[in-house]
Amino acid sequence: MKFTLTTEDNLARLGSIETPHGIIRTPAFMPVGTAATVKAMYADQVKALGSDIVLGNTYHLMLRPGAEVVAALGGLHQFMQWDAPILTDSGGFQVMSLAKMAKLSEQGVLFQSHIDGREYMLTPERSIEIQSLLGADISMVLDECTAFPASHEVADKSMQLSLRWAQRSKKVFTPRPMNGSNHALFGIVQGSVYEDLRRTSAQELCDIGFDGYAIGGLAVGEGQQAMLEVLDFTTPLLPRKAPRYLMGVGTPDDLVEAVARGVDMFDCVMPTRAGRHGTLYTWAGKVNIRNARHAHDPRPIDANSACPASSQYSRAYLHHLIRCGEYLGAMLLSWHNLAFYQELMAAMRAAILENRFDDFVATFKQRQAQGDIEPL
Amino acid sequence: MKFTLTTEDNLARLGSIETPHGIIRTPAFMPVGTAATVKAMYADQVKALGSDIVLGNTYHLMLRPGAEVVAALGGLHQFMQWDAPILTDSGGFQVMSLAKMAKLSEQGVLFQSHIDGREYMLTPERSIEIQSLLGADISMVLDECTAFPASHEVADKSMQLSLRWAQRSKKVFTPRPMNGSNHALFGIVQGSVYEDLRRTSAQELCDIGFDGYAIGGLAVGEGQQAMLEVLDFTTPLLPRKAPRYLMGVGTPDDLVEAVARGVDMFDCVMPTRAGRHGTLYTWAGKVNIRNARHAHDPRPIDANSACPASSQYSRAYLHHLIRCGEYLGAMLLSWHNLAFYQELMAAMRAAILENRFDDFVATFKQRQAQGDIEPL
Repeated sequence: MKFTLTTEDNLARLGSIETPHGIIRTPAFMPVGTAATVKAMYADQVKALGSDIVLGNTYHLMLRPGAEVVAALGGLHQFMQWDAPILTDSGGFQVMSLAKMAKLSEQGVLFQSHIDGREYMLTPERSIEIQSLLGADISMVLDECTAFPASHEVADKSMQLSLRWAQRSKKVFTPRPMNGSNHALFGIVQGSVYEDLRRTSAQELCDIGFDGYAIGGLAVGEGQQAMLEVLDFTTPLLPRKAPRYLMGVGTPDDLVEAVARGVDMFDCVMPTRAGRHGTLYTWAGKVNIRNARHAHDPRPIDANSACPASSQYSRAYLHHLIRCGEYLGAMLLSWHNLAFYQELMAAMRAAILENRFDDFVATFKQRQAQGDIEPL
Repeated sequence: MKFTLTTEDNLARLGSIETPHGIIRTPAFMPVGTAATVKAMYADQVKALGSDIVLGNTYHLMLRPGAEVVAALGGLHQFMQWDAPILTDSGGFQVMSLAKMAKLSEQGVLFQSHIDGREYMLTPERSIEIQSLLGADISMVLDECTAFPASHEVADKSMQLSLRWAQRSKKVFTPRPMNGSNHALFGIVQGSVYEDLRRTSAQELCDIGFDGYAIGGLAVGEGQQAMLEVLDFTTPLLPRKAPRYLMGVGTPDDLVEAVARGVDMFDCVMPTRAGRHGTLYTWAGKVNIRNARHAHDPRPIDANSACPASSQYSRAYLHHLIRCGEYLGAMLLSWHNLAFYQELMAAMRAAILENRFDDFVATFKQRQAQGDIEPL
């Protein structure tokens, strides 16, 4: 894996990551393809929106259909018909949030599947093995995502465990050269909201040495201000020449604020999940299409968008589809939201390239605050 | 509306129907777009498969979003972004099967919405008004779909009511010329399994005079053999120069058998509904993708199909998606099934044109009986 830092605009960075399955333009937003599908989207739609990479979930895929099954079928790219880069998470986050009876030990996490109750053991070594079987271009170390709030003592202990797991992950990871590039492994900085812990975590991860560095344990209930404060002191601790990935974030405003602080990569279920429930993200802020004001409105969500879901269907139709629980409602709103997220990333990349990111942020905030067009 | 009978091959007919929104090639299969969407499909996918027309449901649309709302938004074509022909049913069938407390009288049907319990009165006149507001290219008269089984007396009484309603429907229908064509109104032959009743119904409908004639009250539990026997004596009663529409039918085999008996049009939820539940229709018969035999199978459903859903994804992937309840599973299987149905219709049209429909039927039956490819 090769990271090229093209230019910087204050702390915001423009770059690209070369992977075995192609280039990722950064800052990048990675749509989440939990169970080998970005929900309610065809893979070629996801790609056409400008998504250079999607995320796959180790926890879900190890349970169904199973990592060995995916490997026998040619890997995750082949399985889900996605020929661009894939990043897989380690499974740790979902094990702790979704699985039943998860028991954490030095060795790893023993848990029961939330689907059929079968027992599994996820260790740092097994997580890396699974991610290799899936064929991930970028693998993540298994970590413990420290819950919020956590005392300094609890956060320290948890972060130290994650460090030992990171060491074990690095030890068993093989880069598997392919297409003139290498599969990559990212470390994950933990330490909750504590600067000293984040510093220790970052330094020790850098000593182990990873291809990229994620910031974990955020967007877990601490609120945007606390999250940005953690970013303020954490991103400067990370190597300038490696990509930085803020895990599980976030709203459009979160992305803009984090890019302003030097983050390069994001993933979040928000655009697709919110879409399925009738919430649209737009340049003019959030729109709840379930609201009665849209019921008779012939206007599209965003007449200027290149995405058909945004520009070709009336609000009245989208309102109707979501109200009726129609598949097409979820399909069109997920499509719109992902289109907007990728438009936002492209606009940020253009602004950084032209050294006008501050202006971009000011305009963005103004438009978001303006809100939706007036009802008819 | 203009119906052109291009050629006949025994009883099977090849033709075309000219409507305000374009040509329908017959025999035609009409995908069902219940609530202004063919479930889990984009309208342009439906069209690209060779669907010349879709069906919209008066019952669902009168409840949500309401016929007047659709009219104010430019009609159903504009609302659902479908610029080809639309046929709407009369609402009668769903009122009796879905609504609460439906009370039938000479005047019409008084019922409560299954969604919010609101009370509505559907009369022949209101049904025609609703279908005009929706902008249907082809409207259907309100009828009573006689339940099965029904005694001769009950079936007679029900059929006579449908005839009086047909008369009232015809009286208030205006053809609304558009694009050099006219909106059309179809009558519906009832009479359960009784030949004398079907004869009376057909004759009196012909006396009233309609643009096309539907055969209703079938596929309601009587079984394929009984249905085909009714077709055997009913289609000869219908005018040669008007399209014949078998409502709510059916399986691929039903379509082939009915075309062989001179039917020109069909609608059915089967391809999309079965798709959502994991059942695929193919040239080699039915395939249940939930079956464990597909879990590790890298082969597509039908490598020879032009539809990506049929040829580009492994059975293992489709199995996985349906098992996980993923949107994409419903999307891909509905897509495959509709593609197969339209392939089947195209193959039947080609066979009739080349005067080899009997051979086609024999080959079709052979392939269906052969069944799916062997498991790996």
